[in-house]
Amino acid sequence: MKVTNLNEVTKVKVDMQGAKNVEKQVPISGSDGSPLFAFRVFTVEPDGHTPYHQHPFEHINYVIEGNGTLVTESGEELPIKTGDFALVLPDEVHQFKNTLSDKPLIIICAVPKEYE
Amino acid sequence: MKVTNLNEVTKVKVDMQGAKNVEKQVPISGSDGSPLFAFRVFTVEPDGHTPYHQHPFEHINYVIEGNGTLVTESGEELPIKTGDFALVLPDEVHQFKNTLSDKPLIIICAVPKEYE
Repeated sequence: MKVTNLNEVTKVKVDMQGAKNVEKQVPISGSDGSPLFAFRVFTVEPDGHTPYHQHPFEHINYVIEGNGTLVTESGEELPIKTGDFALVLPDEVHQFKNTLSDKPLIIICAVPKEYE
Repeated sequence: MKVTNLNEVTKVKVDMQGAKNVEKQVPISGSDGSPLFAFRVFTVEPDGHTPYHQHPFEHINYVIEGNGTLVTESGEELPIKTGDFALVLPDEVHQFKNTLSDKPLIIICAVPKEYE
């Protein structure tokens, strides 16, 4: 059993190509003994976005706070806000964008532990 | 891809033995095509608690709002609050309790999809 608060988890800048103004935390992962899944948290600062990309694994998201969009394979921008959940299936092209100029977009991004 | 808000998801009373004043929502599950995991949300009302129980699968939790305790195998009560993450390993005895008299404890509880 493990309990940790987001404020206690180290935050690192995401250097991945296509990412802008994004930081990452990993509150729960395989190193904690989690059998299947890891929980990461991404903070997308104003004017920031994750890469417009795809990968062979799914993720499940929860919007802790903020407003933004989830860009789909067709380029459509689905609005997302505090309290929203999202499922991105394996190989779906996607991107998260912050649409506020003064507040971060903070999202949980849960993935199979092998991908964290 | 799916986006849904917690306010749009049907809430049902948990009738399980040992549960008191608990409601459940399932924003993301295997029926959405999720390959591995389901995200449920439990609302534990004041004076409420989940069963003190164990099961052969893990769960990962995030406290959306409220204050409570996570009871461990030894009976210790670990405080939990908004912004906390928890990992409960397979077969660990555990229980969530709301410790506020006027506000709900709302937690994400992510489990392998087979168990939802």
